[in-house]
Amino acid sequence: MDNIDFIFSAPGKAILHGEHAVVHGKVALAVSLNLRTYLRLKSNSTGKVSLCLPNIHTFMSWDVSSLLPLRPSTAADPKDMCELDAVLVQRLHHFTGFPSEMPDTCAMAVLAFLYIYISVFAESRSLPSFSLSVWSALPPGAGLGSSAAYSVCLSAAMLSLRGSISSTLVGTELTKGWSKEELELINSWAFQGERVIHGTPSGVDNAVGTWGGILRYHAGTITPLSRVPVLRILLTNTKVPRSTKSLVAGVRDKIKKFPSVMHPVLESISAVSVTCELTLEEIASDPMPEHYAVLEELIDINQHHLQVLGVGHASLDTLCRTTLAHGLHSKLTGAGGGGCGITLLRPDADCSVVQNVIQELKDCGYDCWETSIGVPGDRSCPPFP
Amino acid sequence: MDNIDFIFSAPGKAILHGEHAVVHGKVALAVSLNLRTYLRLKSNSTGKVSLCLPNIHTFMSWDVSSLLPLRPSTAADPKDMCELDAVLVQRLHHFTGFPSEMPDTCAMAVLAFLYIYISVFAESRSLPSFSLSVWSALPPGAGLGSSAAYSVCLSAAMLSLRGSISSTLVGTELTKGWSKEELELINSWAFQGERVIHGTPSGVDNAVGTWGGILRYHAGTITPLSRVPVLRILLTNTKVPRSTKSLVAGVRDKIKKFPSVMHPVLESISAVSVTCELTLEEIASDPMPEHYAVLEELIDINQHHLQVLGVGHASLDTLCRTTLAHGLHSKLTGAGGGGCGITLLRPDADCSVVQNVIQELKDCGYDCWETSIGVPGDRSCPPFP
Repeated sequence: MDNIDFIFSAPGKAILHGEHAVVHGKVALAVSLNLRTYLRLKSNSTGKVSLCLPNIHTFMSWDVSSLLPLRPSTAADPKDMCELDAVLVQRLHHFTGFPSEMPDTCAMAVLAFLYIYISVFAESRSLPSFSLSVWSALPPGAGLGSSAAYSVCLSAAMLSLRGSISSTLVGTELTKGWSKEELELINSWAFQGERVIHGTPSGVDNAVGTWGGILRYHAGTITPLSRVPVLRILLTNTKVPRSTKSLVAGVRDKIKKFPSVMHPVLESISAVSVTCELTLEEIASDPMPEHYAVLEELIDINQHHLQVLGVGHASLDTLCRTTLAHGLHSKLTGAGGGGCGITLLRPDADCSVVQNVIQELKDCGYDCWETSIGVPGDRSCPPFP
Repeated sequence: MDNIDFIFSAPGKAILHGEHAVVHGKVALAVSLNLRTYLRLKSNSTGKVSLCLPNIHTFMSWDVSSLLPLRPSTAADPKDMCELDAVLVQRLHHFTGFPSEMPDTCAMAVLAFLYIYISVFAESRSLPSFSLSVWSALPPGAGLGSSAAYSVCLSAAMLSLRGSISSTLVGTELTKGWSKEELELINSWAFQGERVIHGTPSGVDNAVGTWGGILRYHAGTITPLSRVPVLRILLTNTKVPRSTKSLVAGVRDKIKKFPSVMHPVLESISAVSVTCELTLEEIASDPMPEHYAVLEELIDINQHHLQVLGVGHASLDTLCRTTLAHGLHSKLTGAGGGGCGITLLRPDADCSVVQNVIQELKDCGYDCWETSIGVPGDRSCPPFP
């Protein structure tokens, strides 16, 4: 297996519209974010598995022989997996010595890797040895699906190595990509990784990482939109820390306090998502400047609605005001209360304007990237020369 | 009649909640504003009627004998008036030489005075002679009901002089005030003055000027709330000029463009008005600090909704941000797009904080007054010594 050397990448995720409202049964649009996570796997015959995660300063190595006893006694077919194997998770905690309560980012990343690695190869005679590196352009813990992109890459790499999905790489050329069934398998295993990390994830993040593009999420059902444009954006991280859990609870309290005021707001947010979806379809078939004006109006409307829900923050107001001074429209993305925001750039947005805005946002102490949304999902890439 | 010398005052008006939404059949709350208009009438026997309006630099005088021929041939009882006498309006235009199209503030004020004066005394043998002065703390043309307060004062003065309503003043002491029927008569004549000035007014402004307090306005029906508190506020005039007509048209266009997004917003605004009404009733019976917190939350919510309707303005954002930096909550009042805003002050608001905020708002180039809302309506006052 010495000759195997492949690279996979998966995009991050942003919520375009419908954050918080989705918790209350409304429509949300999740979009892939072209700040990607990359995985490189090089097989070897050292009898060792090494995991290298430079973003979170994690470098681990195990003898394959020490991992073999962890394998479940009744192994399921990797294509026929639906429940998380709680016994295996328990064994991994015991083996690694990571605490079950409140594991840190490093612990969760290692546990998710070992879980997917051991489970995918549960049926095979031996465990393969390789070195695996994952690095990411995504800031961790910012609600941008960094753990899902990691899980998607791991899932694709392990399934590929196991032969459960086809190799999409012929020489240094990419073939057309994976089939629908193969992507569904990648997504299922990535979801298991997410469960190891998050407990009860919605499944949206790994779906975005796998399928890419734009997904409609409504009442627990995830539907990829068939025709979507790629949109230029700025992604800004205000770096203001916040607790998603307490923000979600705050919205719930506000709805309880002012039901007649708040329920119509959720209704309006849902309509923003639906209107945006229609506009994106129109852009995909015949883009016009007025379509972008509509997207901008919807961004402004939803940002006000999110403030009504109580998840705004002074740092996000600054983001909106700073970009609007240059004619650009922004909203928070995700939980709010700080965290990240997105700013729409029209296709013809002037580079010098964009550079000025980025500089001004950095001067506010924020991180800011020019990137795009609606980009392809999980991909194999030719290895670097 | 030489000994008649009385002073009336009527409050201005602000919209607490429901501006714009009211046009689309939703509930609005109109409140009296303690920036008042004062009228002083001194009868004389000079055979002249003089009108002195220092705020708008208007000083006019007529021989009573020149006005007599303007009186309608078939005079209605002043208590039994419902239609505007278009012939009289025409005659007044001809008499004064003011153009029928686009008359200015001065022309409208003079026409409204002459209309009410001549109509109220249409049945009597002669027209009384007096000097009449009206001055106001209200900025004109700022959507604060200055014309209605003027009409209410005129109406009360003419009806009082005619003996159609009781004099509420005994010596220099006020009696309990006018009866419901007398107030209704004052309001009807004030409405005629408003029609002379505005063409097709809603009747809300003169009702607020007459009844004071807080009025619920819904689908053309005006209902005074029975028990309301007086609330301390700041009234800020950004002095940014705007056209109410084009703002109303803009909202209509936005509803047409995004019906599924906008209709729920109007619904939510209506619920804000209703929730505010209930909270004000609770404050009137047993005020608690949490009631004021609710009023503040409703102000913030509605300000966001009004921005969603497209009637916000950078000057209003500055108002909200400046006051919020001191823990005070503001919203636009009226048409928006500039114009005026109100800021709620809690009963225990610290005077030095309030003074600092006022100074900061003045430094922005705005006019700012500390005043109150929910105050009494049309009143006679003891004349100044």
